[in-house]
Amino acid sequence: MKKNPHLKRQQQLHRLLKREKLNALALNPGPDLSYLTGLDFHLMERPVLGLFSPKQDPVFVLPELEMGKLADLSFPTQTFPYSEDRSTWPQTFQDAFQQTGLQRGRVGVIPRRLRVLELQFLEAAASSVDFVDGQKAMSALRILKDQHEIKSMQKAANIAQQAFQAIRPLIKPGITEKEMAAALVGSLYDAGSDPGLPFFPIVSFGSNSANPHAAPTDRPLDETQIVLIDWGATVDGYYSDITRTWRTGNMDKELLEIARVVQIANQAGREAVQPGILCSEVDRCVREVIENSGYGEYFIHRTGHGLGREAHEEPYIASDDHTPLKAGMTFTIEPGIYLPGRGGVRIEDDILVTEEGCRSFTDLPRELRVL
Amino acid sequence: MKKNPHLKRQQQLHRLLKREKLNALALNPGPDLSYLTGLDFHLMERPVLGLFSPKQDPVFVLPELEMGKLADLSFPTQTFPYSEDRSTWPQTFQDAFQQTGLQRGRVGVIPRRLRVLELQFLEAAASSVDFVDGQKAMSALRILKDQHEIKSMQKAANIAQQAFQAIRPLIKPGITEKEMAAALVGSLYDAGSDPGLPFFPIVSFGSNSANPHAAPTDRPLDETQIVLIDWGATVDGYYSDITRTWRTGNMDKELLEIARVVQIANQAGREAVQPGILCSEVDRCVREVIENSGYGEYFIHRTGHGLGREAHEEPYIASDDHTPLKAGMTFTIEPGIYLPGRGGVRIEDDILVTEEGCRSFTDLPRELRVL
Repeated sequence: MKKNPHLKRQQQLHRLLKREKLNALALNPGPDLSYLTGLDFHLMERPVLGLFSPKQDPVFVLPELEMGKLADLSFPTQTFPYSEDRSTWPQTFQDAFQQTGLQRGRVGVIPRRLRVLELQFLEAAASSVDFVDGQKAMSALRILKDQHEIKSMQKAANIAQQAFQAIRPLIKPGITEKEMAAALVGSLYDAGSDPGLPFFPIVSFGSNSANPHAAPTDRPLDETQIVLIDWGATVDGYYSDITRTWRTGNMDKELLEIARVVQIANQAGREAVQPGILCSEVDRCVREVIENSGYGEYFIHRTGHGLGREAHEEPYIASDDHTPLKAGMTFTIEPGIYLPGRGGVRIEDDILVTEEGCRSFTDLPRELRVL
Repeated sequence: MKKNPHLKRQQQLHRLLKREKLNALALNPGPDLSYLTGLDFHLMERPVLGLFSPKQDPVFVLPELEMGKLADLSFPTQTFPYSEDRSTWPQTFQDAFQQTGLQRGRVGVIPRRLRVLELQFLEAAASSVDFVDGQKAMSALRILKDQHEIKSMQKAANIAQQAFQAIRPLIKPGITEKEMAAALVGSLYDAGSDPGLPFFPIVSFGSNSANPHAAPTDRPLDETQIVLIDWGATVDGYYSDITRTWRTGNMDKELLEIARVVQIANQAGREAVQPGILCSEVDRCVREVIENSGYGEYFIHRTGHGLGREAHEEPYIASDDHTPLKAGMTFTIEPGIYLPGRGGVRIEDDILVTEEGCRSFTDLPRELRVL
């Protein structure tokens, strides 16, 4: 990583804010704030706010007890710390806007991240400010990954794959979904994942795999079942997110057939990716394979989602996202077919758009193998 | 747990809504929604909403692909599913308000949980509704724990303590903060914690322990250091949250002294707890011990926070929270003294208010022992 990536990112943001006619961007703790500053805060009942504006150093409103985190920053800041006495907080927010001259004009916020809690403090502190959707500026910045981010994502994919291989010998009839998910978490850390996994692994056996977002249960593994696992690792704040589907023995013929179709759809998606193609076109290629096989109504979600510092971010590989692909974008391709009450198959890879086409960070075998 | 705790909780909520003059409460995914329904949803770019109103069954607006989660509910619902086509979402929200007759009046929201994303859909769908702070009704319900909740919290405390004892032999000079935190996570699952820990453990050595919210680093353990660990487990959605501080060898005399003071303060806090006492009075008892010892300025946070389905919830053991304690309330008592650049000591217990006084779910030794 370059010596000071955060300052560079802040400067890029300033240009995007001007383009969007925003005086500033107001961020609560989360992936945007850590992308711009390297800072992580708990998202809690004490509001923390970062204000980014072209004409000045970043402004922070935060609890006194979090001030230590600002000590090692490589860029100057303006800080407005508040005490544990909640009655003083509104004034601290007001001071932050007034003393930095940001008390009017348009200020962007991120609707997916900002809570009503912070919005209320913002609106009370700066009643003349028009708080508007600032997602576009932030997304334009984060959607293109640099070499350091790409390296972290490749490493996160490698760690996820290694972590699965390490627990494979444990997967025997009788193990429960929860036990397998817990073992996988331990294995992800052993393999080198950072704290804060992208999500707790989905492990679903048999008919439970027909629910795309199933939570692991105490259901034990039988000898002739689908085993769907969706998991990921974290490296320097960047995620991997991979799904593979296995079987434990002989299988209903139709489940074998949907596995074959999903694998072809996954491949069609990866082959469609190249600079200039629209996200919606990639979704179409994948969806057509499944529709032509007669299973269209059982592919009940979009083809994929952007991946990086968030498990779901822009761009979305969906029928209504017409973003043209560019080298440096990263997202999942994850077609699935789910037969209610019987079982589901999903195959998910993490894709980087390159000048030539694409590269998959993930490369575990994709066919419905016996575990 | 009683056969249908969720329906009972919804009925209790209806009474509280009437008291607060609210037509309904609008909840996004999180601890409030799961408390009332048992349902867990990912908090993502697809908005999910539950609407609770005295006159009717709960209303859900949600993605089609999440509909499976409603299949096993023990109470009837009204559902408004939407497809992957984002342009249809506003109409679905509008239908939910109009077809249930909730398109005017006061509807409560939870500012700490609801995002601007959901607020925008709500305001667009029901422009005549006044969306107001509904935290009071929800907190009044959740602040008193029933026997089942108390059992889960005791179990979560036991699991956390067992998990620590199990990794104790691994704690040797050279192990890093990150390695110890990762080992503790694996051990928490082995000991029986559910997925979704309350938080990733804080493990801080030496001067890093002077930062109350330190993130684990690659710093290795020396032979004469403070070791501060703050960790917790999850059982049926309920959390434990415990901190203990150890040392690895001989110690600076002043660090020994602050450990002694913090232990006395922790004990004073536990002894102060009984029905009728105000939260702010408990904070005062604890703070006085530390102030009288001359370290007041280094106790830089409140004494504690409510604990249950959230790692921080009501009531707060703080100078500005004048809630009178009642049997069934649960919170932490966690005084700390932090000497910048040198080290910190915190001792945190999970406390249940009983008719007689209190009970601590956590009971690991509190003195500054050698690990």
